[in-house]
Amino acid sequence: MTTQLTRPLRLGMVGGGRGAFIGAVHKIASELDGKAQLVAGALSSDPAVATQSAANWFLPRSYHSFQEMAVAEAAHPEGIDAVIITTPNHLHASVASAFIKAGIHVMCEKPLAFDLAEALELQQLLSQHSVLMALAHSYTGYPAVEEAKAKVACGELGVIRKVLVEYHQDWLMQPLEQQSDNKQAGWRTDPAKAGISCCVGDIGTHAANLVEYITGDTISEVCADLSTFVPGRTLDDDANMLLRLSSGAKGTLTCSQIACGEENNLRIRIYGSKASLEWQQQEPNSLRYCPAGQPWQLLRTGVNLSSPLALAGTRLPGGHPEGYFESLANIYRRFFHDIHLTQTGQPALGGYPGITEGVRGMALIAAAVTSSTKNASWVSLK
Amino acid sequence: MTTQLTRPLRLGMVGGGRGAFIGAVHKIASELDGKAQLVAGALSSDPAVATQSAANWFLPRSYHSFQEMAVAEAAHPEGIDAVIITTPNHLHASVASAFIKAGIHVMCEKPLAFDLAEALELQQLLSQHSVLMALAHSYTGYPAVEEAKAKVACGELGVIRKVLVEYHQDWLMQPLEQQSDNKQAGWRTDPAKAGISCCVGDIGTHAANLVEYITGDTISEVCADLSTFVPGRTLDDDANMLLRLSSGAKGTLTCSQIACGEENNLRIRIYGSKASLEWQQQEPNSLRYCPAGQPWQLLRTGVNLSSPLALAGTRLPGGHPEGYFESLANIYRRFFHDIHLTQTGQPALGGYPGITEGVRGMALIAAAVTSSTKNASWVSLK
Amino acid sequence: MTTQLTRPLRLGMVGGGRGAFIGAVHKIASELDGKAQLVAGALSSDPAVATQSAANWFLPRSYHSFQEMAVAEAAHPEGIDAVIITTPNHLHASVASAFIKAGIHVMCEKPLAFDLAEALELQQLLSQHSVLMALAHSYTGYPAVEEAKAKVACGELGVIRKVLVEYHQDWLMQPLEQQSDNKQAGWRTDPAKAGISCCVGDIGTHAANLVEYITGDTISEVCADLSTFVPGRTLDDDANMLLRLSSGAKGTLTCSQIACGEENNLRIRIYGSKASLEWQQQEPNSLRYCPAGQPWQLLRTGVNLSSPLALAGTRLPGGHPEGYFESLANIYRRFFHDIHLTQTGQPALGGYPGITEGVRGMALIAAAVTSSTKNASWVSLK
Amino acid sequence: MTTQLTRPLRLGMVGGGRGAFIGAVHKIASELDGKAQLVAGALSSDPAVATQSAANWFLPRSYHSFQEMAVAEAAHPEGIDAVIITTPNHLHASVASAFIKAGIHVMCEKPLAFDLAEALELQQLLSQHSVLMALAHSYTGYPAVEEAKAKVACGELGVIRKVLVEYHQDWLMQPLEQQSDNKQAGWRTDPAKAGISCCVGDIGTHAANLVEYITGDTISEVCADLSTFVPGRTLDDDANMLLRLSSGAKGTLTCSQIACGEENNLRIRIYGSKASLEWQQQEPNSLRYCPAGQPWQLLRTGVNLSSPLALAGTRLPGGHPEGYFESLANIYRRFFHDIHLTQTGQPALGGYPGITEGVRGMALIAAAVTSSTKNASWVSLK
Repeated sequence: MTTQLTRPLRLGMVGGGRGAFIGAVHKIASELDGKAQLVAGALSSDPAVATQSAANWFLPRSYHSFQEMAVAEAAHPEGIDAVIITTPNHLHASVASAFIKAGIHVMCEKPLAFDLAEALELQQLLSQHSVLMALAHSYTGYPAVEEAKAKVACGELGVIRKVLVEYHQDWLMQPLEQQSDNKQAGWRTDPAKAGISCCVGDIGTHAANLVEYITGDTISEVCADLSTFVPGRTLDDDANMLLRLSSGAKGTLTCSQIACGEENNLRIRIYGSKASLEWQQQEPNSLRYCPAGQPWQLLRTGVNLSSPLALAGTRLPGGHPEGYFESLANIYRRFFHDIHLTQTGQPALGGYPGITEGVRGMALIAAAVTSSTKNASWVSLK
Repeated sequence: MTTQLTRPLRLGMVGGGRGAFIGAVHKIASELDGKAQLVAGALSSDPAVATQSAANWFLPRSYHSFQEMAVAEAAHPEGIDAVIITTPNHLHASVASAFIKAGIHVMCEKPLAFDLAEALELQQLLSQHSVLMALAHSYTGYPAVEEAKAKVACGELGVIRKVLVEYHQDWLMQPLEQQSDNKQAGWRTDPAKAGISCCVGDIGTHAANLVEYITGDTISEVCADLSTFVPGRTLDDDANMLLRLSSGAKGTLTCSQIACGEENNLRIRIYGSKASLEWQQQEPNSLRYCPAGQPWQLLRTGVNLSSPLALAGTRLPGGHPEGYFESLANIYRRFFHDIHLTQTGQPALGGYPGITEGVRGMALIAAAVTSSTKNASWVSLK
Repeated sequence: MTTQLTRPLRLGMVGGGRGAFIGAVHKIASELDGKAQLVAGALSSDPAVATQSAANWFLPRSYHSFQEMAVAEAAHPEGIDAVIITTPNHLHASVASAFIKAGIHVMCEKPLAFDLAEALELQQLLSQHSVLMALAHSYTGYPAVEEAKAKVACGELGVIRKVLVEYHQDWLMQPLEQQSDNKQAGWRTDPAKAGISCCVGDIGTHAANLVEYITGDTISEVCADLSTFVPGRTLDDDANMLLRLSSGAKGTLTCSQIACGEENNLRIRIYGSKASLEWQQQEPNSLRYCPAGQPWQLLRTGVNLSSPLALAGTRLPGGHPEGYFESLANIYRRFFHDIHLTQTGQPALGGYPGITEGVRGMALIAAAVTSSTKNASWVSLK
Repeated sequence: MTTQLTRPLRLGMVGGGRGAFIGAVHKIASELDGKAQLVAGALSSDPAVATQSAANWFLPRSYHSFQEMAVAEAAHPEGIDAVIITTPNHLHASVASAFIKAGIHVMCEKPLAFDLAEALELQQLLSQHSVLMALAHSYTGYPAVEEAKAKVACGELGVIRKVLVEYHQDWLMQPLEQQSDNKQAGWRTDPAKAGISCCVGDIGTHAANLVEYITGDTISEVCADLSTFVPGRTLDDDANMLLRLSSGAKGTLTCSQIACGEENNLRIRIYGSKASLEWQQQEPNSLRYCPAGQPWQLLRTGVNLSSPLALAGTRLPGGHPEGYFESLANIYRRFFHDIHLTQTGQPALGGYPGITEGVRGMALIAAAVTSSTKNASWVSLK
């Protein structure tokens, strides 16, 4: 960074109050490097919870609605520079719109919106405002993922031939949504709040984003077979897809929330004509790399990574594990830098997931669901 | 075994002479337990190679053609009990037919035949003779695979929901078939010798067989996208498939001969409503097993396996690695026991891959190729 | 916690300015949960560096000496609640003494002091003041380490028979201390600043602490063979030790800074009469556990851990890796809770490494060096 | 090999009858390559067992005593070329002596003899006869071990600084020797049959041999702490040792038969000034290798190994696991080749463990036990 922040940025949050672990995750990640501080929130639709959650976090300002917050913060002399949106999916777009219109930068959880149409509207709105938008595809913040992307970009893998990506969990293998106290399972399996997909929407989008982020290529069409294995459930809890990429590479994407024993197993393998690589989110500091005809190498964060973004995203010497918080913090770091550049009249640099990736994710969801309803016919992502 | 062999069985081999590593593999595996001895061979279509190869192995009898061998051995007072066929694919059926007609039991390399029609003819022929036939789906001989099968069979996994199988190699990532001295690559990529598929035929069939062997279920239909990545090649060197099983389980099968860095990476994961398991051929003595809500367990050959077939197929105490030879030897052991039972007037027990699995394999090849030519439409395996 | 903080605690730091990564580590870890904020520092003995470092971190108050800082903060109406000491070893005790005398709580990097005598003096001083002291044995903060400790404590392992601990790095395998710009290597290999040991002092103490923390037992005597492999170096860069524990368990401790290819490989294995367990710092969210006669189990942070401290120290759902920062933050969390208890007139709970562990570490260093000079005779740790 | 065998070698075995798994292991390994056949045996001291065991294996000649066998086979026109000794330790030397005197080559299980004195006598006897002797340090037959040895020999590791070797099992963690039907546990824990050590004698010798085989160096002295953890047992069931090598390298050797959960965990790590490597017997086809400043590489049998002995000892393409049988078969292969050279008047080549390694092993046992009785003082291996 050529210039530095002269004060910590001020952040607000919508959603994420007590009981929603994702709020604490974003608070920790956004404040981790000491470049920003959470100072305002509309942390819950329940006023008592909102107030109490804000007090727990020592927030100076607490609001009971995001609409009120957007207006008030925009008018406040020390108002927030950016808002973090951690609500259920169906609220993403309206919250984002309110803050965009108020001129406040936005970090939003994925998926971007309730459906593709809403996402496109948001894209339209954003194009009319000088506001930055980031999307929490947190996995792209790992240094080893940056290194993978850099290797592909500089041609070390040659022509990409095959991409295998998977994202498996098991937390919905029982009908948790039938327990009244499981809010998380409740809204994620509810079409009114989650949209047209549960599994693909929640984690399939992460997997697809990772493919496109590392390869720099786009998924051109999918042939998808979505399933609902747990009785009584409306939305998909599992999906298998064939992928075709614009460059001619082929592959599979498989995701599941009912894969017994799996925690949060996001894994990608990319095979090129000159080399291949493999990365797993659960051991994020290792990148397996194999140049043709040579042994597999174990590239390690803090030790053997050499791309600028990988180095910039590493805070500790090798062998000191960095994890999910630091990955998300890396995305925040770039987002904050862009805010700083914008505020000082310089052009933003990007390099973190934003509106484009958000729209791509919604297109993936739409294409996968459409393909599946057509008995796994190929459907283009346009 | 209630009764025991009173002499070692006598074996012959067709194909497998010098330069074809698969011949030595079958010799070692079939003789490993001291229950059989290779005594005759038509080891090469090149007479000099055939003679020299037989001499290297100290074989009493060497032939220049399999037809001659079948007739002569059937007439010999100490003729062979069984023949091992290790020729390229296009010869499997004619060699097998010759020996079946001569009343000699047959162990054949997979795939069973050149195409599905030929396989069905062979099945028809076999039904008319009192001859046993085994197919070298060698991976089903590993004790950990037996244990996996037993766990599914006794319901430990509950309802199978998802099956992921993959078989990745990289040995054809360069156009080796253009080198005149690479016979192996030459015939495998030659439609006149390999049939309508290279990758699916050679290793996709192993993967599909493993799915059906462990689950006891059948693949009902496939949606396949076959690719040929190496320029100048006619047949597929990579494939991705969606699977549907008769029971309602879903899954993917992906195989490749151009996956840079992969050696012989056959791996299967099965997710059920009660538990899941995972096995990899390259670490064959470990079976990962996870009952719902409990930790992953590492079941180990010689230590924690408990099913009868797993125990019967284990020759060493835990921690003494057993590998590919011993796996194939386990299939031979059951095949030899059936020969003994047959020779002593008792009913054969089966329990090793045979004609049925061979026909299933050819059906898989046919369905995958058909599906791919129809732009990955679902095709039934009947 | 029965009562909660009503404001974030105020922290100061001595040492840790620009170029010393350990300062940023402590800042991030101590602030991670939003319960404390760094507000003052004497970050470097170089006044310009001290000032600039404080500005980078937006610290309200910067000092040029720790003595000045101790006095000023004690007198300040919003003075710091606790100080973090991240200087080289030879300054630990004098800095700590200054703040103890000023009535300010202390978190100190390990080893506690320059030598055992100094450590004992500090222990004496501390006993005369109502000040809390914590020591940054950061590895004990991992949830999986807590789980291990709990398993031993509740008898799941039976009688402990064998303990194998190792801590291997390679960062000193070349004579980095001969490069003038490597301050870290410079002071760690300098007897005037590091004390009588480099490798044992820096990382052997961590390994020994981990043994005693998990087992709840004490190392009674060591038989140590220290080595200096890199020419021109005075202090040890490698050590191998036999261990005897008070309970009768035996074991080895091996540590190295010249073990080519090793990053920060702290690993412990504990074998009991009923079960055993294994943990590695580089994959900190997994705890391997094996009850006698059963398979190895993979216990995972956020999934299968059940001890209260392990659960309390977990911030994310399973499969979202937590690492070094979060481990150290767990120690801070307990330390801060004790500060809060003390400030509200309640008794402190402990549960984090402190003066006792610091003195034990110095005793280990002294015993190991003495043993080695006596050609690896047994030396008691008293 | 410049010349080839004109017939399979004829082998005999002493010990190894029914119930002793080690007999079948040697039969399979020695016959694996089709270069030798077991034709005679004195398989048990129990005549009925001896006869039945020989019949099970279709052996033409069965004896009731090894003395009778040695004499008869020496006189037989088609007498055995070599004998395999698989008895308990206390018989090794007398059996070996009988066959040496009869001019028959000997493959003996380790340890070589009951004690060091007996080993030295045997060495003296052997020097007076033109008989070859091999010792079953089976682990040195793995291709990855050969590769490791070759890397050290050609200087790729630079100066060896640190060697860590361990061999852990748990099969004696309960007092199995008190069960009358456990012959194996019975004689191994019986000083009258096993000698002065159980654990060090049985597996510590393997570990020490592996160190010396790979490094080409010798262990000059040990500082050993032997333990007997299971009540009622006389001999050691666990040991920890500090090692010093003649070259100046240091290290540890730890072995156990009571390490809960361990199967047959032989593992070695060697750290040099230029590179390091690691190998584990339970995953024998992988060799981890790390040149200084570069990533860890995964060298794999059949793929990346390049030393002549590693290549010669590999029977399968990469990814087809080879295991314990093939490792032992590699030692037999070299031993048989030497027999062939000797029989055709050519000088033997060696390259497999023999009398020298056997004496070294007995010296290690003697030194370790002596050191331990002197409270872990350094004892030289001469």
